[in-house]
Amino acid sequence: MDDSFFHSQVRTVWWEEDEADGRAQIGLLDQSLLPQQVVIMHLQHEQQVADAIASLKVRGAPVIGVTAAFGVALAAARLLAERQAVQRELTLAELSEHVHEVSQLLCRTRPTAVNLFWATERMQRCLQQVARTSMPVQQLVALLQEEAQAIAAEDVQACWQMGMYGAELIADGDTLLTHCNAGALATTGIGTALAPIYVAARSGKNLHVLVDETRPVLQGARLTAWELQQEGIPLTLITDNMAGHFMRQGNIRSIFVGADRIAANGDVANKIGTYSLAVLAHAHQIPLYVVAPCSTIDLSLPSGDQIPIEQRKPEEVTTLYGTSIAPAGVAVANPAFDVTPHPYISAIITEKGIVRPPYRENLRELDTEH
Amino acid sequence: MDDSFFHSQVRTVWWEEDEADGRAQIGLLDQSLLPQQVVIMHLQHEQQVADAIASLKVRGAPVIGVTAAFGVALAAARLLAERQAVQRELTLAELSEHVHEVSQLLCRTRPTAVNLFWATERMQRCLQQVARTSMPVQQLVALLQEEAQAIAAEDVQACWQMGMYGAELIADGDTLLTHCNAGALATTGIGTALAPIYVAARSGKNLHVLVDETRPVLQGARLTAWELQQEGIPLTLITDNMAGHFMRQGNIRSIFVGADRIAANGDVANKIGTYSLAVLAHAHQIPLYVVAPCSTIDLSLPSGDQIPIEQRKPEEVTTLYGTSIAPAGVAVANPAFDVTPHPYISAIITEKGIVRPPYRENLRELDTEH
Repeated sequence: MDDSFFHSQVRTVWWEEDEADGRAQIGLLDQSLLPQQVVIMHLQHEQQVADAIASLKVRGAPVIGVTAAFGVALAAARLLAERQAVQRELTLAELSEHVHEVSQLLCRTRPTAVNLFWATERMQRCLQQVARTSMPVQQLVALLQEEAQAIAAEDVQACWQMGMYGAELIADGDTLLTHCNAGALATTGIGTALAPIYVAARSGKNLHVLVDETRPVLQGARLTAWELQQEGIPLTLITDNMAGHFMRQGNIRSIFVGADRIAANGDVANKIGTYSLAVLAHAHQIPLYVVAPCSTIDLSLPSGDQIPIEQRKPEEVTTLYGTSIAPAGVAVANPAFDVTPHPYISAIITEKGIVRPPYRENLRELDTEH
Repeated sequence: MDDSFFHSQVRTVWWEEDEADGRAQIGLLDQSLLPQQVVIMHLQHEQQVADAIASLKVRGAPVIGVTAAFGVALAAARLLAERQAVQRELTLAELSEHVHEVSQLLCRTRPTAVNLFWATERMQRCLQQVARTSMPVQQLVALLQEEAQAIAAEDVQACWQMGMYGAELIADGDTLLTHCNAGALATTGIGTALAPIYVAARSGKNLHVLVDETRPVLQGARLTAWELQQEGIPLTLITDNMAGHFMRQGNIRSIFVGADRIAANGDVANKIGTYSLAVLAHAHQIPLYVVAPCSTIDLSLPSGDQIPIEQRKPEEVTTLYGTSIAPAGVAVANPAFDVTPHPYISAIITEKGIVRPPYRENLRELDTEH
């Protein structure tokens, strides 16, 4: 990302070396503590990476894909360093098996976002391809690191492109609504759903963003509000149940959301509450735009009905910062995502262009190359 | 209310005398502390009553009407006692003026629920009517107390009747959705929207209730979940933004909500989020029932557009139990209510029967007698 674009330096995840011993590690902004605290973690083991994804220290489909790729590269580097420390050889078969196991570990953390599967598969494919060349194992480990960094760099680039395409759909003076966080914090770049807003704002358009707080984990209140505030974009925070009221009052011009997985027919899994917004938007004739990189598209699934929906623990609903907000022992449902059927989606904005219905044909034509 | 109906003894507000000096006071369950603490307050001054309503220690359209009536009676008794203590006469003119001022004080607390205006007007009318009989002032004060207690008793009765009528719309095995708290805690009886659920459950129907947590003040999570749990009615707590997801899954048979004000054309002001639910219900062909006593109907307003919507302070959205959940200085919108246009409402259940469209004619025919 162009370092001068953001007033703040929002960085979500990156590859680094330990200052003391030069060991490979992953730098990661702990998003679960935002906006009260800005804490950077340094992860040296793949289990820490899996835990960080599972506990939402890093969240957002694109950036958990990047984090998983870094996690695979880290696991390879760690295993190699362990072997070198005891002067034992690491065979290609051992490395391959380890990379496979770590990929499975990382994919078990969160079932809905396809980027996790996409990124770890790409890392494994990279290893398989170069393995045929009888390259030394040490060099293979270095190549995995390069592949992970390539995935991160492509994510940065894709965010820019989504931003440029999407900004065309935003007019000067618009009030936009967004849900959850699909911003810089959800990527390694300038975001997905927020990228068009950032690009439009930088091109001189005056905008106002209504931000759904996004219960239960409050990614809107904690992350999107913080991010927009840092960038000086005017926003108003609302509770999720106010969106319909403001649509009816005629205040909202269009809605921008991200995606965790897009099926072949254009059905979209995204943060719980997206479907309700989509139905409300349709009733008020407000366009709903989904912004996501091609790595989010899963052509192997005919429709959204096949997308697995992650069920998270009840405590996310019943407690907030350790304080109970419901009677003890109450039963809770906590699906983290819902599926919005494609007829409710006005367009899907990718880094390769804006896709309109019919989605089955037009998504296939995108030639997603993954 | 039939004392044996509730397993728990949910009491919201009542007239009582101080144990030590026999002074008139109002007993009130502090709902802002539920479900963690069950604290009873004893109010001896009308300003305390106004503060309790404004700060949501007591909330729910019917019970704030009853509380305001008690508040007027308390103010009259307090003024009389003060004069007696200094052996000064209280004139009818002074009493009337005081009752008028206290009514205004109480009506300034919350603008949307019409029950507050209805109850204080009824108290003032009661005083005007008996004043003509040249009854001693002391007796007038006692009559005001009786009138307030009559309002409370009628509320108990109305809840029962709404429960009986509404229960006919509930079948064995139904899963129902409710929003906010329109239960025993919102009335002096068995509730409005929850009354049909209680009556249906007691008549042997197996029910399951999905409870919207109802941000920002969480009346669903804190009050409705607690109330249903106490009564042994199976429930599942969800965040507000999950409602559409569960409607799409076919899990919800019908929706029961209360009302803070109903205009002459059947438009309904109720807790923020009700309008979104109504649009979602319509899209999924799920009936939405509004349950409210006739005191909630305001025939003086042609439509919901004329209902004043209370805007509450931003801190209700940005903090929870004193913990900040959003970045400092963020702009917030916090309308406490929204308006649902009458075409989205399947029926309005009152203590006089079930009202169906056309509402303008049928609400007028109810002969609301207020």
